[in-house]
Amino acid sequence: MENNLFGAIEAGGTKFVCLVGSDPDHIEAQTRIETTTPEETLNKVIAFFKPFITKRIIEGIGMGSFGPFDLSLGSSTYGFITNTPKPGWSNTNITGILRQELNVKIAIDTDVNAAARGEFRWGASARFDPSLYLTIGTGIGGGYIINGEPLQGLLTLEMGHIRIRHDLDLDPFPGSCPFHGDCFEGLASGPALYKRFDGRGETLLDDHPYWEIEAGYIASALVNYILILSPKIIILGGGIMQRSFLFPLVRQKVLDELNGYVQSSVLLDHISEYIVPPGLGDRSGVLGALALSQLATG
Amino acid sequence: MENNLFGAIEAGGTKFVCLVGSDPDHIEAQTRIETTTPEETLNKVIAFFKPFITKRIIEGIGMGSFGPFDLSLGSSTYGFITNTPKPGWSNTNITGILRQELNVKIAIDTDVNAAARGEFRWGASARFDPSLYLTIGTGIGGGYIINGEPLQGLLTLEMGHIRIRHDLDLDPFPGSCPFHGDCFEGLASGPALYKRFDGRGETLLDDHPYWEIEAGYIASALVNYILILSPKIIILGGGIMQRSFLFPLVRQKVLDELNGYVQSSVLLDHISEYIVPPGLGDRSGVLGALALSQLATG
Repeated sequence: MENNLFGAIEAGGTKFVCLVGSDPDHIEAQTRIETTTPEETLNKVIAFFKPFITKRIIEGIGMGSFGPFDLSLGSSTYGFITNTPKPGWSNTNITGILRQELNVKIAIDTDVNAAARGEFRWGASARFDPSLYLTIGTGIGGGYIINGEPLQGLLTLEMGHIRIRHDLDLDPFPGSCPFHGDCFEGLASGPALYKRFDGRGETLLDDHPYWEIEAGYIASALVNYILILSPKIIILGGGIMQRSFLFPLVRQKVLDELNGYVQSSVLLDHISEYIVPPGLGDRSGVLGALALSQLATG
Repeated sequence: MENNLFGAIEAGGTKFVCLVGSDPDHIEAQTRIETTTPEETLNKVIAFFKPFITKRIIEGIGMGSFGPFDLSLGSSTYGFITNTPKPGWSNTNITGILRQELNVKIAIDTDVNAAARGEFRWGASARFDPSLYLTIGTGIGGGYIINGEPLQGLLTLEMGHIRIRHDLDLDPFPGSCPFHGDCFEGLASGPALYKRFDGRGETLLDDHPYWEIEAGYIASALVNYILILSPKIIILGGGIMQRSFLFPLVRQKVLDELNGYVQSSVLLDHISEYIVPPGLGDRSGVLGALALSQLATG
């Protein structure tokens, strides 16, 4: 192999996926580590990468992390996982620990920005700029690529927390978001389904009438993203979108809500190529971390 | 004067403002033309600029136009005002006519993008990137500057048409948008006020209880823009924001809706410098057209 090798970490609340490679077709090593305590988890991450660094096989590592992950340059907790409800992980200097123990350059971003980068580099949104990657699962979050890079503004983007229409007659559930009640995440995330159906959200049959409502919430949020961000493609990932029958429902409801206002043949004639599942399947995040490592240190 | 001179046109539905200058402090000539028929209006625009072009005083013109204004490169109606309800103006090749009659380079953008450019170049958002300019008046629209330029995606941005929360008990008005009913523009624009109060919207006293509701709609939309676009400053222009008592109301409601979720001192401690009126007053649009002319031809 002639390509330079890099390390990649997808740091998630339930698992860490680590790999060494150069691109999706050239992965030299890979491991999956259960997320337990920070010490135990990071020790396993360090043990995985150590030989590659000692032998000077890899030149840097990219990491996409769960959050809240502090990416404010100049902040005293830059690179920390800050006030997470995940037991034991609050105020963990995950980046500093790995950098010190591995003595290697580490480029960092949020988990969803990493996934957006992965899809833009090697997946469904390659050559679509601007593009939007959305994950709809335990949480709802978005990564927006513009001019080849995730949008960086005042804050880490929190587009899962936007307000959408909520018809209480149709769906009296008050929402599960501790901050906003019935924001998009509060209505449509995995935990919202769990609460709405007393713990049975994950087992709802595909023909349950609730899925029409869920698709409506997703469509309503997508319409707002389309009108505000004007992405050239929208990728929907995350656990809930594993229910692939949601895609045609969401697409139709997006068109219904726009109601002919937007005169774009991409939307009107080709919406099944506009709102799509990830091209990299469940590997968007870790491959995005790989893309990140190359951009930052290459 | 040593600076190069350019022309600028703010093409609006009620008036065209035209000027020749180099920057806000060096305006050589200016005129205001009532918008009547395309022929009459454009003839006056041509007559204003003709001497400056014949004498080679100006090098190019920037124009921000009302819409729908076709900015899709390669479109057969590029530079046209397309299907506007404004009588006589549908499918007017405004750019082509001016280019042909004046024989000069013309750089074009939407009216709201021009205003966003003006504020970014010389006004309240100078040095704030990304930044958001919003007009709330006859219509509601936004221009988002990122990496020094207005965001260009799949479509012309239509962020005035996002859905926001609408409590029918508090405000039973069904909305005035012919496409979406109670979208943000349908609830909070000038025509929405006009309809809601049977033509008396413009004369509502400052202490009318409706303004609390209006400020709530504006705040609700701003929260969505903040969570999706993360601008470093938000400028609110347009006729409705001339009611300056709305600013403190909107700011407080934005903080209330975010409910502590966003930990940014810019928002939490300095919101009166974050949500602000235009620095250029009612000249954002025409000065933005001037900025546009320089970028495109300089």
